[in-house]
Amino acid sequence: MPVNLTSPVAAQLLPVAGISLGIAEAGIKRPNRKDLLVMQICPGARVAGVFTSNRFCAAPVIVAREHLTKDQGIRALLVNTGNANAGNGEQGMQDARTSCAALAGLLNCKDTQILPFSTGVIMEPLPLSKLAAGLPAAVANMREDNWFDAAQAIMTTDIVAKAVSRQVSVEGKSITITGIAKGSGMIHPNMATMLGYIATDAKISQSVLQQMVSEAANRSFNCITVDGDTSTNDALMLIATGKAANPEVQSVNSEAGKALQDALTEVAIWLAQAIVRDGEGATKFITVRIDGGKSEVECKKVGYAIARSPLVKTAFFASDPNLGRILAAIGYAGINDLDVDSIKLYLDDVLVAENGGRASSYNEAAGQRVMQQADITIHVILNRGAANAVLWTCDFSYDYVKINASYRS
Amino acid sequence: MPVNLTSPVAAQLLPVAGISLGIAEAGIKRPNRKDLLVMQICPGARVAGVFTSNRFCAAPVIVAREHLTKDQGIRALLVNTGNANAGNGEQGMQDARTSCAALAGLLNCKDTQILPFSTGVIMEPLPLSKLAAGLPAAVANMREDNWFDAAQAIMTTDIVAKAVSRQVSVEGKSITITGIAKGSGMIHPNMATMLGYIATDAKISQSVLQQMVSEAANRSFNCITVDGDTSTNDALMLIATGKAANPEVQSVNSEAGKALQDALTEVAIWLAQAIVRDGEGATKFITVRIDGGKSEVECKKVGYAIARSPLVKTAFFASDPNLGRILAAIGYAGINDLDVDSIKLYLDDVLVAENGGRASSYNEAAGQRVMQQADITIHVILNRGAANAVLWTCDFSYDYVKINASYRS
Repeated sequence: MPVNLTSPVAAQLLPVAGISLGIAEAGIKRPNRKDLLVMQICPGARVAGVFTSNRFCAAPVIVAREHLTKDQGIRALLVNTGNANAGNGEQGMQDARTSCAALAGLLNCKDTQILPFSTGVIMEPLPLSKLAAGLPAAVANMREDNWFDAAQAIMTTDIVAKAVSRQVSVEGKSITITGIAKGSGMIHPNMATMLGYIATDAKISQSVLQQMVSEAANRSFNCITVDGDTSTNDALMLIATGKAANPEVQSVNSEAGKALQDALTEVAIWLAQAIVRDGEGATKFITVRIDGGKSEVECKKVGYAIARSPLVKTAFFASDPNLGRILAAIGYAGINDLDVDSIKLYLDDVLVAENGGRASSYNEAAGQRVMQQADITIHVILNRGAANAVLWTCDFSYDYVKINASYRS
Repeated sequence: MPVNLTSPVAAQLLPVAGISLGIAEAGIKRPNRKDLLVMQICPGARVAGVFTSNRFCAAPVIVAREHLTKDQGIRALLVNTGNANAGNGEQGMQDARTSCAALAGLLNCKDTQILPFSTGVIMEPLPLSKLAAGLPAAVANMREDNWFDAAQAIMTTDIVAKAVSRQVSVEGKSITITGIAKGSGMIHPNMATMLGYIATDAKISQSVLQQMVSEAANRSFNCITVDGDTSTNDALMLIATGKAANPEVQSVNSEAGKALQDALTEVAIWLAQAIVRDGEGATKFITVRIDGGKSEVECKKVGYAIARSPLVKTAFFASDPNLGRILAAIGYAGINDLDVDSIKLYLDDVLVAENGGRASSYNEAAGQRVMQQADITIHVILNRGAANAVLWTCDFSYDYVKINASYRS
């Protein structure tokens, strides 16, 4: 079950002026399941995004990048679950384009004004006719207050939907931000390790919007790992409709820019953490905080070595303070001049290791107490610089194996 | 259960002239279990080795490296299981040295002529008094034909002991090689990802011996992964007693050097594969062959991305030909200019993917047939160069989680 994460309450999700959402059951993988989302965007809105760095990226990722570059005013996002349309060669590219054309026909816009997204099984042909047949129902379903259903429609192995809203005041205007995301396996940077859609009614210039989505991704979706697998289909999209009628934000360093960036990053972090809390088979939510590194890069190296170690993750699943495994992971993180004697390791507030070994003040009962919690922080102080990094991960349980051994069935 | 691997037959393990092995039950982790091995080496023998690259390497690794550098004629190896003596700070160093001194007293040699090795739980103090109390029994047990018991004594979570012998003719002399190794978790390069001891009666110069052990490790133990965790305690030692009285091998490129290298590498590969076949929870043995890369380094990158992917490994556990996960792993291996359209993916002899997607000749039944085997080859042709690499890994099962969630109990 998700770790300290409950389903969002539909009434608490705030509509974003200029965004309508329509959902349908297209039967792409199986019947009677919401699996199609159309997110319509008002004219004049701006859209920016970051995409997976996987070389085997899916056809919709390639097409979405292409359409975004043409910059003709994106009018809708089209998202299907149940099939990733990845590893499908030239046919996959054709199918992605055809799906855009089908929706463009219904919305009376150009194909290139549609961004397609898919998530699901890799290397199986996209059931294009089912998708196309589901589009009219999704378009007919379009409403501004449909964020809850939208969050449900993009779920795959997620147990609960992930959605959150925030409001922030910018230059006297109340700005709304609402985001949805889905996990929950094949989660690892870079980049954004899932599908995420965040919309705001703020007015933001195109270049600032791109900076903001990159920064938000780096502080959120690029700081999580469930299983170390970077997906073929990841994307985080940020849409700014401009309906709040604030003076256009033209710099991330302005007061308005900073306020918006903070709020957007907060939403992105909430969604990213929700993905980890609902990570496949997760029973623990683990924050990995690395301080005192020479650079953020080396802090992340150490953090990810810990966060993706199956041995560390199974020990947390068992609530077993077999914490030497954390030292081992620090040791193989690839920092060649690391002085292990100057490292301190904490579990929450409990000092576990220093001077190259177990702290004299440490006792098993103290470690055991923390290991039994659902939320745990591993804190490593490298003592060799001023940089830091924070990552989030979950434990590794029987259910991870079960879920992934039976994913297609 | 181990995949196509059965326990060695004691009678088929050949003694190596100049090597005696003594085993004892010292009760280091639990009673009534062989957990102590003394391998005595005749005067005049040469010893070379490779060690873990983990920065948090264990105290015995540091001491063994130190003693080996002093090069005063190593007279014995001392191996304990049940405790890794890693992450124990200054006390760990003292304990490793004291254990050498205790054995040196019994064998009437210098402390620095002993190499210590430990494997087991990290960051728990070495029970030195138990270890020392067990030494006289191990010394009294010393015999040349004790290789089978020695292989048993170094086991941790291994299900079967790993030992093998080979004979090869070099310049008219029959040369014997016998090796033992233990796995079976925390298995990942570099370097040697376990404990391995290979002895031969060949006469080999010190520098050639070091080259030979490095080469053998690179072709074997550095080509395997079980869980992606590089251990704190790994070591592969190669001992050449010289008792076969062959003319000293002074070049790896001589005919004798090549013959010996081939035989040693063969033994090392057998042991490394045995570790994977008996990998924690393994039900499948998977060979990952990457051809057509620009360099061996990039072939290994692709190979390890596949071999350590939990998603790939759980699909193999389930015998589910969800092979798009292999494409995803290839895609995130970190080769930025990879052209995915030119890659071919085979499962044994079945062409699965080409031209960026599923091969038109592929059908699920053919993939299913191969997935049901216990031994499977994933073959990737990158089509961008002439380099290649071969790695070995196993699948990821419920039992991996079970074994590692209960390792200390």
